[in-house]
Amino acid sequence: MSSGEMQYAPPFLNPALSPIRVLLSYANRPGTVSFAGGHPDVSLFNVDALREASEIVSSRLAGCLQYGETGGQPAMREAAANLSAGRGVKADPSSEVIITGGSQQALSLVAQVMLTVGDKVIVENPCFPSTDQALRHTGAQLIPVTSGASGIELEELEEAIRQHRPKMMCVVASFSNPSGSTLSAEKRKKLLGLALKYKVLLVEDDPYSDLRYAGEPVPPIAAFADEEERNWIVYLSSLSKTVAPALRIGWMVAPAELRRRCLVAKQADDLSTSPWTQEIAAEYLRAGAFHSHLPSLIKTYGHRCETMCSMITELSGGRLTFTKPEGGMFVWARLTGGRKAQDLLQHAIDQEVVFVPGNAFYPDPSKQDPSTLRMSFASVNSDLIIEGVKRLVKAIDILDAQ
Amino acid sequence: MSSGEMQYAPPFLNPALSPIRVLLSYANRPGTVSFAGGHPDVSLFNVDALREASEIVSSRLAGCLQYGETGGQPAMREAAANLSAGRGVKADPSSEVIITGGSQQALSLVAQVMLTVGDKVIVENPCFPSTDQALRHTGAQLIPVTSGASGIELEELEEAIRQHRPKMMCVVASFSNPSGSTLSAEKRKKLLGLALKYKVLLVEDDPYSDLRYAGEPVPPIAAFADEEERNWIVYLSSLSKTVAPALRIGWMVAPAELRRRCLVAKQADDLSTSPWTQEIAAEYLRAGAFHSHLPSLIKTYGHRCETMCSMITELSGGRLTFTKPEGGMFVWARLTGGRKAQDLLQHAIDQEVVFVPGNAFYPDPSKQDPSTLRMSFASVNSDLIIEGVKRLVKAIDILDAQ
Repeated sequence: MSSGEMQYAPPFLNPALSPIRVLLSYANRPGTVSFAGGHPDVSLFNVDALREASEIVSSRLAGCLQYGETGGQPAMREAAANLSAGRGVKADPSSEVIITGGSQQALSLVAQVMLTVGDKVIVENPCFPSTDQALRHTGAQLIPVTSGASGIELEELEEAIRQHRPKMMCVVASFSNPSGSTLSAEKRKKLLGLALKYKVLLVEDDPYSDLRYAGEPVPPIAAFADEEERNWIVYLSSLSKTVAPALRIGWMVAPAELRRRCLVAKQADDLSTSPWTQEIAAEYLRAGAFHSHLPSLIKTYGHRCETMCSMITELSGGRLTFTKPEGGMFVWARLTGGRKAQDLLQHAIDQEVVFVPGNAFYPDPSKQDPSTLRMSFASVNSDLIIEGVKRLVKAIDILDAQ
Repeated sequence: MSSGEMQYAPPFLNPALSPIRVLLSYANRPGTVSFAGGHPDVSLFNVDALREASEIVSSRLAGCLQYGETGGQPAMREAAANLSAGRGVKADPSSEVIITGGSQQALSLVAQVMLTVGDKVIVENPCFPSTDQALRHTGAQLIPVTSGASGIELEELEEAIRQHRPKMMCVVASFSNPSGSTLSAEKRKKLLGLALKYKVLLVEDDPYSDLRYAGEPVPPIAAFADEEERNWIVYLSSLSKTVAPALRIGWMVAPAELRRRCLVAKQADDLSTSPWTQEIAAEYLRAGAFHSHLPSLIKTYGHRCETMCSMITELSGGRLTFTKPEGGMFVWARLTGGRKAQDLLQHAIDQEVVFVPGNAFYPDPSKQDPSTLRMSFASVNSDLIIEGVKRLVKAIDILDAQ
């Protein structure tokens, strides 16, 4: 009776995740310039201030070692509420905030309490693969709605809502991953109106909005919500892009009943996010290091963004087009003339430069645009960006010569 | 159109969790002796060694701030494999181990990849409420099997397997929570045999086995598994009871395909456990602080266990009976003579002592034993244990006088 096989639950896998993993193995080859990763540049973090925050926590360590509240340490909830309020999203730290393992866990918790097999959820097309995976894991069906240079398309969205009656819709309103696009204030207000009109929970994931390099600041969607609309939006954010991913600290600002359910889910999931790293992060924020350091991040990333965009324009001869992002980490580019990103990739690897072909970001394979590619400028210095774009253009030359 | 209500996914809640929360609010009243919590005693942790480990990590902090591998930092996977091997559970750190947010997240990940609505899973009756919740959250049905003074009852278990064809069964083999019971080596082998015979994944949660105060050590169930049986067991453990809960570090040792699926689930859930706390924990273990500190934990907890047991025997006049646990944190006691723990609780609160009535630990309300209560000796010093048992006996006197 020993030849049977394990019966797993349906995995509801996002098939795009595996190719990305293979690709990232090329990215780590010595000598290769990688535009493929989505990571911030560790060398830009405020290591001294993080070390100081850690030392302060060490000096009162005995008080930071026990299990913590599932919703988060009071100091970190307060700090997250302050950061949110600074962006225009008022939040009560004791009744609306949960500290999570990055904004990824916040999304996962919301997905768990909202979605089950057969439910529908709207995502941007293209969208971040781990967002896709967290939603898909519940067994829900993903409904992709086109997200172009100015973000999600509202007419297509409303039509999709009418047709599919989704329970939830997920957007990154500022400097989206991968599209780099940002929604206007007007579109943000309209999105809220749709959420309320059709009773669809709007999940706003906002990891990047502090990293703006150009254009006028726009508050998060949640900042525009009136009292009634606040019942239909959950706001997610993270310290991973601006402080350090290794803290694993994100948060959600959620209506009371949604928060209560997410707390139960989080208790079953991991009891709480590490109280130790929460206390370190809260000290870092209390000391003012977040706001004093942010300008240097903006300056460096902004310069890298500018370098990548101007080099592509200068060198590609119109064969690679893009809308310049106003912030974030990504340039979402298109190969013109029927060229395909997947065909370019092997030549790029040969030239020791890598990117992620756009097909990794489309939840529905039938709605892919094979000409697209995502290029991150965040973790490569400007000299290497210049070198990398040169190599990429050479790879396009080789592709064209075939 | 604004009067609609949010449509949540079915929450599959464990109804026992809410009363425990209310109860724990009494436990924090000044002057109250609490046997209710399930927390380790922070004052017994090796704070100096943790601070030293933190300082070492601080000295190379720039290398510890990035996103980490979803499976865990290599040093922590190695350390977890070593700890497991020290208990007899050999594990390849790169192909069998995942570092998780406590063993709670390990259980949650296994539940997510194994169970869906309509599936069945066997749990001990009584069982730990957060285990119950993590399993129930998938929509699976819990099948409770009696766990007495010598652990889960194998005849009832085999009958339940035959009747319900579960996909999974979960046990705490050493010093279970709440029952305090420990399975013999012989029963461990038989459990493995049942897992293999009926193709049921055996989940062994082992947070307490290092805390043995009496009796002969027994290796974890997984240590008895032959090559074939290893395909049907996943071993979970944690640093929360022996190092510090605030690290939020646990791990699983899983067969390759199960591990692969859990990695996908973890990536969607929180990308990884904090690399920062993983590095601190790995340093603590590398320095030998775990094994040098363990004897002092065993000595203090063992003394508290002894004090609680001898005081109950001495003072209760046979109205409170129990099987003395060989380790862990809990005395699982029974009121004799038809007395009910729930009736005793209000008198106990009046006398400023609290415990958890057993009904919080029964997944199936129809299979409760209302005479039972869980008393933790872990976080109360011996003088307070004596005082607390005196108060408890006074509460029984008052109950009897009514």
